[in-house]
Amino acid sequence: MPQPRAPFVADDILLLGPGPSSVSGRVRQAMAQPLLGHLDPQFVALMDRVQADLRAVYATQNAYTLPLSATGSGGMEACLFNLIEPGDRVVVGVAGYFGERMREMATRAGGEVVEVRAEPGRSLDVDALIAAILGGPTKVVAFVHAETSTGVLQDPLPIAIAAAEVGALVVLDCVTSLGGLPVELDAWRIDAAYSCSQKCLGAAPGLSPVSLSARALARVAARARRAPTWYFDLNLLSGYWGGERVYHHTAPISMVYGLAAALEEALDEGLGARWQRHRQVAQALWRGLDALGLHLLVAPAQRLPMLTTVRVPDGVDELAVRRALRARHRLELGGGLGALRGKVWRIGLMGDGARLASVERVLAALAVELQRDPQVALAAARADLR
Amino acid sequence: MPQPRAPFVADDILLLGPGPSSVSGRVRQAMAQPLLGHLDPQFVALMDRVQADLRAVYATQNAYTLPLSATGSGGMEACLFNLIEPGDRVVVGVAGYFGERMREMATRAGGEVVEVRAEPGRSLDVDALIAAILGGPTKVVAFVHAETSTGVLQDPLPIAIAAAEVGALVVLDCVTSLGGLPVELDAWRIDAAYSCSQKCLGAAPGLSPVSLSARALARVAARARRAPTWYFDLNLLSGYWGGERVYHHTAPISMVYGLAAALEEALDEGLGARWQRHRQVAQALWRGLDALGLHLLVAPAQRLPMLTTVRVPDGVDELAVRRALRARHRLELGGGLGALRGKVWRIGLMGDGARLASVERVLAALAVELQRDPQVALAAARADLR
Repeated sequence: MPQPRAPFVADDILLLGPGPSSVSGRVRQAMAQPLLGHLDPQFVALMDRVQADLRAVYATQNAYTLPLSATGSGGMEACLFNLIEPGDRVVVGVAGYFGERMREMATRAGGEVVEVRAEPGRSLDVDALIAAILGGPTKVVAFVHAETSTGVLQDPLPIAIAAAEVGALVVLDCVTSLGGLPVELDAWRIDAAYSCSQKCLGAAPGLSPVSLSARALARVAARARRAPTWYFDLNLLSGYWGGERVYHHTAPISMVYGLAAALEEALDEGLGARWQRHRQVAQALWRGLDALGLHLLVAPAQRLPMLTTVRVPDGVDELAVRRALRARHRLELGGGLGALRGKVWRIGLMGDGARLASVERVLAALAVELQRDPQVALAAARADLR
Repeated sequence: MPQPRAPFVADDILLLGPGPSSVSGRVRQAMAQPLLGHLDPQFVALMDRVQADLRAVYATQNAYTLPLSATGSGGMEACLFNLIEPGDRVVVGVAGYFGERMREMATRAGGEVVEVRAEPGRSLDVDALIAAILGGPTKVVAFVHAETSTGVLQDPLPIAIAAAEVGALVVLDCVTSLGGLPVELDAWRIDAAYSCSQKCLGAAPGLSPVSLSARALARVAARARRAPTWYFDLNLLSGYWGGERVYHHTAPISMVYGLAAALEEALDEGLGARWQRHRQVAQALWRGLDALGLHLLVAPAQRLPMLTTVRVPDGVDELAVRRALRARHRLELGGGLGALRGKVWRIGLMGDGARLASVERVLAALAVELQRDPQVALAAARADLR
């Protein structure tokens, strides 16, 4: 008889990449609770609570606000595949890897895509985007709020106003922003938004909170043909998460436990305090990186708090540094994606990981691996917090 | 300042419905481990281990064997949407709710669907299915191995042989069978199979293990147009789970931990011993139900071990009984789906829940709620095990 194998024991690594981020012990223990059935009354009550909490973090009254049983890209597919009908004119803002993904999905959904591009590290040119929206019978406008590949913030409001003028629906990618900086779906008149669980919301990866306006749902209901997806069919999903509780698929119970605990933590902290915490630790990080002589990709006015892209200094092997951080400092950073591959590190300060202690660990470790003085960086980081 | 809300504490319910089933403490604690990055070397090694273990439970050499980041219905969508091109002739066996779901998805994928139906509680007529396969230029044949809505087993081999004769690919739904009764993908010449994590594999819901043959992958690669899905695009997914480790979407890390632990438990137990355990406890259940004067929907030769459909006696309110079981006995059974709604209970003995203790609890509780003698049922159940 073969020997039982040793159980897997995960290393304890501080995750400071683009996500997943390290989550609190409370969130992890929530996932270890006994399973309930997906139609159990106690679980159904928890679903209601999760939906209400998601409305709070999205700042929306949208009844249709729920976590899809998929990662953030599943939310992107759900929004685009349900809202776009073959032949629809779709304006997509592409300011990085995830805008590019939206463009790809909009094309697969059958959209006639008009793209507006930005250089990596810059936000979209709002005038160019508005011109594209007004330049034809636009049905859907899609772009990213916080571009995870570059660390750039996009202001949604002027774009959404232009879209509303022509009756186009707005799809906003909130994967990296939600929980870490203000997201105001109703005030911004966003029709469909999706996010993920594993970044600033502070849960494990595996769920995609989405929210759809009544306008968006009316568009879905009026489709000439059903959406080319069953798993992400928003009409079918509403039967389970809506009042009827009709079985669609088996909800990932443990993931919902974890998300519920993370939302509790976020709302107990208060969204305003949480946003401020993300901003404060980011500023400490930026001061420290500057003290180390490192340069950031994004100009301050467009820079995200929760994701900082750092230019890799000339002559430094970016992958070797990340491997050394993992092996010697038990710390994970992200590398560059797409056009930025090999050129930047991505440092995420998200959710439970957005702490001064995280900033200090990453600055000290980078200083050691780049053979610079950690004390200077740490002093600079701490000075900013006084 | 508002009071923090009390954290959610899940009731400890023995889940004996159609899934999710109660999972072991080891699997639950595995999910509570610290998160790793989705490209972390330790996590990548765990992915390799999970893939190897899934090949073992599927009895396949298929390199393309991996858990999708979705529930079982996501696996169904992945297999059907990638393998079916618009206009393809697709023969679907419909012996219940999940065969019906396959038919629906095959239609959405653009297939010209030919369906072969069975009465609820009966398996498919193999001769009729073979005649349908041979009756035209069939591209894909799809059916369910263990129909979760009725509790009926289907023998895949003769159907797969007929499909091979005409060069049609075979898609097999193994959602309820995998880990609880023999599944032999290579011996049966199955081209695409999908399952779930939360039934006989003994993990939490949220992952869908799929396996595709080289023939199936060649068909996907030769598509005239890309699959109408991005999240479930099997070509893109292979970049992450295959050797290249190209980022596609963020894997649900904690769910993979749980699945890895569940697969370890299953393989340490031994698949043969696990199948036998499922069969033994099912037989004990059947004896006990008989002693209670209850009747089963499915004839013994076609009956699944892990899911038993019990006819609700005349004059009994099936929902009231299930509610009483939940409230007074901390026990969940399933109700009927589709045509069987209100007519049957579904008792699942799956994975870690497939124990004599589960049989005894459900028999005793049913006896109390139906005002029958529990001792007679328990004696009958135990007698069978000697």
